[in-house]
Amino acid sequence: MPHESTEIGRSDYINRLDRAASAAASARLDALLISPGSDLRYLIGYDAIPMERLTCLVLRATGEHWLVVPELETAAAQAAGTQDLGLELIPWPETADPFALVADRLGTVSAVGVDNHMWAEKSLRFAEAMPATAQRLAGSVLDPLRAVKTVHEIDELARAGAAIDSVHAQMANWLQPGRSEREVADDIAAAILEAGHVQVDFVIVASGPNGASPHHEVSDRVLESGDPVVVDIGGTMPSGYRSDSTRTYSLGEPPPDFAEYYPVLQAAQAAAVAAVRPGIACQDIDTAARTVIADAGYADLFIHRTGHGIGLQTHENPYIVEGNTETMQAGHAFSVEPGIYLPGRHGARIEDIIVCGDNGPIPLNKRPHGIGVIE
Amino acid sequence: MPHESTEIGRSDYINRLDRAASAAASARLDALLISPGSDLRYLIGYDAIPMERLTCLVLRATGEHWLVVPELETAAAQAAGTQDLGLELIPWPETADPFALVADRLGTVSAVGVDNHMWAEKSLRFAEAMPATAQRLAGSVLDPLRAVKTVHEIDELARAGAAIDSVHAQMANWLQPGRSEREVADDIAAAILEAGHVQVDFVIVASGPNGASPHHEVSDRVLESGDPVVVDIGGTMPSGYRSDSTRTYSLGEPPPDFAEYYPVLQAAQAAAVAAVRPGIACQDIDTAARTVIADAGYADLFIHRTGHGIGLQTHENPYIVEGNTETMQAGHAFSVEPGIYLPGRHGARIEDIIVCGDNGPIPLNKRPHGIGVIE
Repeated sequence: MPHESTEIGRSDYINRLDRAASAAASARLDALLISPGSDLRYLIGYDAIPMERLTCLVLRATGEHWLVVPELETAAAQAAGTQDLGLELIPWPETADPFALVADRLGTVSAVGVDNHMWAEKSLRFAEAMPATAQRLAGSVLDPLRAVKTVHEIDELARAGAAIDSVHAQMANWLQPGRSEREVADDIAAAILEAGHVQVDFVIVASGPNGASPHHEVSDRVLESGDPVVVDIGGTMPSGYRSDSTRTYSLGEPPPDFAEYYPVLQAAQAAAVAAVRPGIACQDIDTAARTVIADAGYADLFIHRTGHGIGLQTHENPYIVEGNTETMQAGHAFSVEPGIYLPGRHGARIEDIIVCGDNGPIPLNKRPHGIGVIE
Repeated sequence: MPHESTEIGRSDYINRLDRAASAAASARLDALLISPGSDLRYLIGYDAIPMERLTCLVLRATGEHWLVVPELETAAAQAAGTQDLGLELIPWPETADPFALVADRLGTVSAVGVDNHMWAEKSLRFAEAMPATAQRLAGSVLDPLRAVKTVHEIDELARAGAAIDSVHAQMANWLQPGRSEREVADDIAAAILEAGHVQVDFVIVASGPNGASPHHEVSDRVLESGDPVVVDIGGTMPSGYRSDSTRTYSLGEPPPDFAEYYPVLQAAQAAAVAAVRPGIACQDIDTAARTVIADAGYADLFIHRTGHGIGLQTHENPYIVEGNTETMQAGHAFSVEPGIYLPGRHGARIEDIIVCGDNGPIPLNKRPHGIGVIE
């Protein structure tokens, strides 16, 4: 994995468009209709904001693509470098019907793939404008492409990982008895930006009994001596790639029941990471973590999947969950984050982003895995 | 309009749910399927984040509503106060199919309204799970309700307006020759949070020729003496209600052609505001602004609609645009923001949020409308 600065540029985008067009053709989709969001950014580098006015990349299986934009977004779309990618830019005037415009230009086609995150107010209007055209999900074509990261993308994810690690490294400054979860979270949010992220995506500070709710965010609860605290944080880097890492801390000596299950969690997380290699089914990585926890008698306390893919979205393919029989490929990047949650008492989670390398796991987060005891 | 603190609470949400259910019944929709986003927040006060796992309010025309949540979000959904609203909470386990679950419980129904912002990966899965059920847009039912603001909501929008006004009031500290648009935008973003917003929604600093692109955001262009600068900024308050206001500044004496068209813009904005009253068609407010600009010979330089509704979204109904024959009602809240854009040279825009009162317009932004000359 190279660590010199590499930038995702014109040739990458052209390559992605070509591969997506081929995949659409193989899936018998005449076109993909791509809305503002991570798919659009992945394919052409245009970080447009989803709005009521239609912006849509019409990615055609034939290889001739259109970028349909509101007239007043034309300059913004050009400034994003889209004019170098061989796209035909189609601005639509303020009072035109862009859905009819796309339908008219496409003519009668049998099936299109709509962006997984396209708003219903867009997809239903496309359906009305193209009543004879079946809609499927563009993700069926794009998700497998996006899931396998290039060296450039892994480099960006590694930068994101180092940035969030540097925030965890400062946690002892903030996690102190007498401070509220919210006060701590504000400090963490500022540090996420200081560390080079352009956006704070989430800050979970789950102390004491709040730690037993995996998606608790923050509250006004005041930290007490002896509290275990789950800290799950992430942000977006200038490149668009995301960070996401969890460590569990303890304010002084942790409670005995917490100290009892924590080593089980640590072993489970390590077992799941160790299982990562090309060819293994995603669900088998989940099983690797779950078996360790179940064998120790805590099966009912691990109430979520083991992980999720990460890239231009915090959650994307592949999902590390029972039932996902897809096989791991070199270049997949995802979280491994088992947890143990004791209702009413406390909880613990350990989360690293892992890349599946040719010969096994490459962790992108490097902070120690033990209980982060803060004296 | 009262100015004491009022909070949107349980009785408001119950009232909104009741009105939405009646409206759904009138529209012959058996249920509305509401995703995380502003509709969900409006109806039950739950500020959930859109994710791959389905969270969905099933708002039934019969009045018995369900909140379907991933099992691990149960505590978060309860913490949002949803248990006081008479909803049935339906957590679904990590490996279940929540679309089948909803379809199964709903039974055979003829039509549902899907949230305008529901992701296609959800709406298409609902379509698969309920092949005999027509999908329409929930907005057809909810938008008219959301567009008419209550006294509480107007109070929240007024707070948002005062907050963004306080940011514009400081502009002379930041807009100085030799600083880049980006540097200025960073200062503005920090001030938006300082002023009481919890989120920066957008910061447009469009200097000199960049001002001619209505949706230019920021660039590394360095401000020069004599530059006109369009500053269009907004954020989200803790209540979820949004601010959005534009003023145009000039670094010292503005160029003669700018000084010539600016008074026309000011007159156009004032004419549109003066036209606001219950019963007028939305498009006639647009015409009021457009006529002033056209009469002065600048018709081709006003290239967007006059405004958009605002509330829990920055852009929502009613849209102040040619073709929108809907009539203005007391309680509508929207922007009035004509602009004049001279390609390659500069541009100007003036934007206030206006509430349609019983007797005419109530502006929620109060900063002076003239060129903001910064010496």
